Amino acid sequence: VPNESAILRQVAKLAAARRCPNLVLGIGDDCAIYTPRAREDMVFTTDMLVENVHFSRATHSAQDAGHKALARGLSDIAAMGAVPRFCLLSLALPPETPARWRNGFFAGLLQLAAEHRVVLAGGDLGTAPVITADIVAAGSVSRGKALRRDGARPGDRIFVSNRLGASALGLVTSKGAAGRRHRRPVPQVALGSFGRNHHASACIDLSDGLSSDLHRLCLVSGVAARITAPPLFPGASLEQALHGGEDYELLFTVPPGRAFRHSALTCIGTIEAGPAGRLFLDGKLLRPQGYDHFRNRK
Amino acid sequence: VPNESAILRQVAKLAAARRCPNLVLGIGDDCAIYTPRAREDMVFTTDMLVENVHFSRATHSAQDAGHKALARGLSDIAAMGAVPRFCLLSLALPPETPARWRNGFFAGLLQLAAEHRVVLAGGDLGTAPVITADIVAAGSVSRGKALRRDGARPGDRIFVSNRLGASALGLVTSKGAAGRRHRRPVPQVALGSFGRNHHASACIDLSDGLSSDLHRLCLVSGVAARITAPPLFPGASLEQALHGGEDYELLFTVPPGRAFRHSALTCIGTIEAGPAGRLFLDGKLLRPQGYDHFRNRK
Repeated sequence: VPNESAILRQVAKLAAARRCPNLVLGIGDDCAIYTPRAREDMVFTTDMLVENVHFSRATHSAQDAGHKALARGLSDIAAMGAVPRFCLLSLALPPETPARWRNGFFAGLLQLAAEHRVVLAGGDLGTAPVITADIVAAGSVSRGKALRRDGARPGDRIFVSNRLGASALGLVTSKGAAGRRHRRPVPQVALGSFGRNHHASACIDLSDGLSSDLHRLCLVSGVAARITAPPLFPGASLEQALHGGEDYELLFTVPPGRAFRHSALTCIGTIEAGPAGRLFLDGKLLRPQGYDHFRNRK
Repeated sequence: VPNESAILRQVAKLAAARRCPNLVLGIGDDCAIYTPRAREDMVFTTDMLVENVHFSRATHSAQDAGHKALARGLSDIAAMGAVPRFCLLSLALPPETPARWRNGFFAGLLQLAAEHRVVLAGGDLGTAPVITADIVAAGSVSRGKALRRDGARPGDRIFVSNRLGASALGLVTSKGAAGRRHRRPVPQVALGSFGRNHHASACIDLSDGLSSDLHRLCLVSGVAARITAPPLFPGASLEQALHGGEDYELLFTVPPGRAFRHSALTCIGTIEAGPAGRLFLDGKLLRPQGYDHFRNRK
């Protein structure tokens, strides 16, 4: 049985393969040390992935779980229009978890990290009754340029990336492209940067479902919204596209007159003055119905 | 039953009472935004607190658990000689957890945060089979000045803060001052800054026990160490002081000739050349015996 230090040394070795120039010190001390760049803002998010809540071993491989843990964090960084730089991981496992599972988890996480040049800079290892992974993702963005949720204004157009409903469909079928999107969501980092460079007024990632997340953005921006049906992932229903969570696509609002052309972005409506958070779909009231951990409890 | 958004709004209100001047955006968006100061390094740590692993509801009040979650993170910041600035919290609770418990947890956490002028800048709320809290703490330190574990050199003196064994004693008795120290450990932030200002060569916080943590520091510094018995917390045994975890006191190494006088710091030995990580207590070999989640599994 390897002990905690041995596991950490192994992970540190894997993680050291990638370097972030401003990360002075990574795994192995009480803290990671980062030297900020000139004129840089930093953005931070934390997201917990819990077995049998966010994934199950029956439907997700260890690699899928590792990928998903980091993808959720990177999607939050993307939604700020920022570039991810490094991450930290707290991982608690049941004592009987096979070493193979643990190694697979790190492999899935570190592969996605490598794709985005993100360094695993530290973390914590422990035990828990079910697999519990908390990811901390940190990113950087030019000072004052981060995209926030509260910048939407009446007259702005609403865009979503790609097609919606894949994850909800994949949750049901577990098959094909939708199954893969459910197990390995793709954080839209490049589109987040596109949105920031093209002066989006607000952005949010679709983690709980279009209706909930657009509602949230409108609530903090103090506006209402009017949309038509979003582009559907092949095989997904309108319900799945509107209320299904975990698509991790991005929703932008864009001031009138700003060019915002990209093959992966579709305009689905406009922001308007009105009661904060009120949504209309094809002229009819649309109620937010996304996932809420505490509302959905039995 | 309040939903996730309602809980977050309530927490955001409480957290907003404190401000960190460089935190541009806190709870309520996909990420927190921080504008780094000039000539500042940032340090980051993450620590997971799991019910029935790190605490139990029988021995810890909700306030104790909230305090402990943050104290662990602040202690890591202190060990770098840094000043804590903000924190993020991922909290997953069994669905049947009373609202009173959740409120108590936030009260305990936010009270300690206020004492250290630390802002709760964001997080995640979800469900899990047992209470699971992952704290992310971020601090700042003058560029290049963070205290690391790997700076100890032969000839350096070894200092520890205050007296050791309180937490191990308190774990057994649950009573008096030791019980309080076990339930509400005190992160030694001011002493960490003292160590940095007085040119300590290395520092580590005593989270797993003196023998383990000194062993770790020596291992990465490539040195051995020779110590005498550390100051004992009243009622604690030498065993508890050497191998008991969760004291969250600090251990410094200090180059010869550097003044390092402070009423809370005691010199307990010296670093010497020798096999990396080898420890002697009063001339006899001392084996590290601190807590290891994976080694101690049944």
